[in-house]
Amino acid sequence: MIKITIIGSGNVAQHLIDAFAKSDAVEIIQVFSRTQKHITDNLDPQKIITDWNALAEADLYIISVSDDAIASVSSQLPFKNQLVVHTSGSAPLSLLDDKNRKGVFYPLQTFTKGKSIDFKTIPLCLETQFESDYKLLEKVAYSISENVQSIDSHQRKALHVAAVFVNNFTNYLYQLGNEICQENHVSFDILKPLILETAEKLLTLSPKDAQTGPAKRNDLSTIKAHESFLSNENQSTIYKILTQSIQNHGKKL
Amino acid sequence: MIKITIIGSGNVAQHLIDAFAKSDAVEIIQVFSRTQKHITDNLDPQKIITDWNALAEADLYIISVSDDAIASVSSQLPFKNQLVVHTSGSAPLSLLDDKNRKGVFYPLQTFTKGKSIDFKTIPLCLETQFESDYKLLEKVAYSISENVQSIDSHQRKALHVAAVFVNNFTNYLYQLGNEICQENHVSFDILKPLILETAEKLLTLSPKDAQTGPAKRNDLSTIKAHESFLSNENQSTIYKILTQSIQNHGKKL
Repeated sequence: MIKITIIGSGNVAQHLIDAFAKSDAVEIIQVFSRTQKHITDNLDPQKIITDWNALAEADLYIISVSDDAIASVSSQLPFKNQLVVHTSGSAPLSLLDDKNRKGVFYPLQTFTKGKSIDFKTIPLCLETQFESDYKLLEKVAYSISENVQSIDSHQRKALHVAAVFVNNFTNYLYQLGNEICQENHVSFDILKPLILETAEKLLTLSPKDAQTGPAKRNDLSTIKAHESFLSNENQSTIYKILTQSIQNHGKKL
Repeated sequence: MIKITIIGSGNVAQHLIDAFAKSDAVEIIQVFSRTQKHITDNLDPQKIITDWNALAEADLYIISVSDDAIASVSSQLPFKNQLVVHTSGSAPLSLLDDKNRKGVFYPLQTFTKGKSIDFKTIPLCLETQFESDYKLLEKVAYSISENVQSIDSHQRKALHVAAVFVNNFTNYLYQLGNEICQENHVSFDILKPLILETAEKLLTLSPKDAQTGPAKRNDLSTIKAHESFLSNENQSTIYKILTQSIQNHGKKL
């Protein structure tokens, strides 16, 4: 069994603990948390420590804290020459303290508190400072997911920015859609099958081939009708910018 | 059996014919097409007509043609006082010619040529000029879907605009995400589980509660890092506008 210690008790840490609990190849020996609190039912409370001096020796230390805290947490670790990884999409490998062997273990997914998720399909993006450490990290990753990727810091940065477009920005468009429904007394639920199908379409079509709508086909009368329908300035601005961008994008290609 | 004639042979018409083929309550008696061509395996080619004079009497005529053509097609119909509906999300009921009883039968979904879809979950948005016609239209709708909605022209317009946000614009964000991946030599496939989960999250959370990311938490250092990462002007413009909009939206609420 590969012995792992998790440092952090947030949302990602909790989902990782739940995933590793089902793994045969990995054992979580400790979880470092600032306070002695319940983290998940899948963790024996006795494994939770709040004092750096209580850390036992592990094969891998996973720092799962906010980006701002990675540097200071990694420098506080009371040991050296161990394999220490963070789970951030945007932080570079170099953010970790030099006294340990560095790596990244980035699960590219959106985690919702209290909503369980099938880890098997989640892409785990791995990077290690030393090639000799990659194998262990890969073994740990494959013990919970079938989707393991070797991704360097530059690629990970690109993925993280792209993820903002397809996750954060997309969800914001859902929010604007919801707002338009509320303002016009129609249930947002009616749009949910469309939202799901729009995402599922990508399994068979490229987004370029899947693009439809008035902007794509340059249907100016529908665009004009939509613009005059939208009285909310924010919605109207976003509508115009994205419509123009789709129209120009088509011309460029 | 309710007798239906479909006028049009495009993408939506084809999906409707496939759906009605499985219905016990409805029979498609004719399909009007400009040319005698193969439409779907589920249609007896002898039912395809290309001459208005060959139209037989039906209980319901469904005009499924492009928005621009609805008015002229409905005025060409060689009969009067029949129930005639269109399938458009953006066209008003009034676009149909006055000589027949009008209605709308709008399936709110994105239809991909050649990709079959489970009609049962597709919202069918119905409207009729006369209340007495609603029951028949409802019966037809329930024969292929469990999701039947009474939606007036104003509500349908709102749904159609909202659908542009959650479908066309969302797909465009997928396209930009794909572009960022390609430019940085990383596979877009890695983002697909995230895209699916972002959509599926809406089944348990409102989009407002599901919103995460640097803009939402006002993480200025990550936003700055993303902005300097994006060298493509179009991507950079969309990133800034949507980030600002998310930040301001949070303040307003």
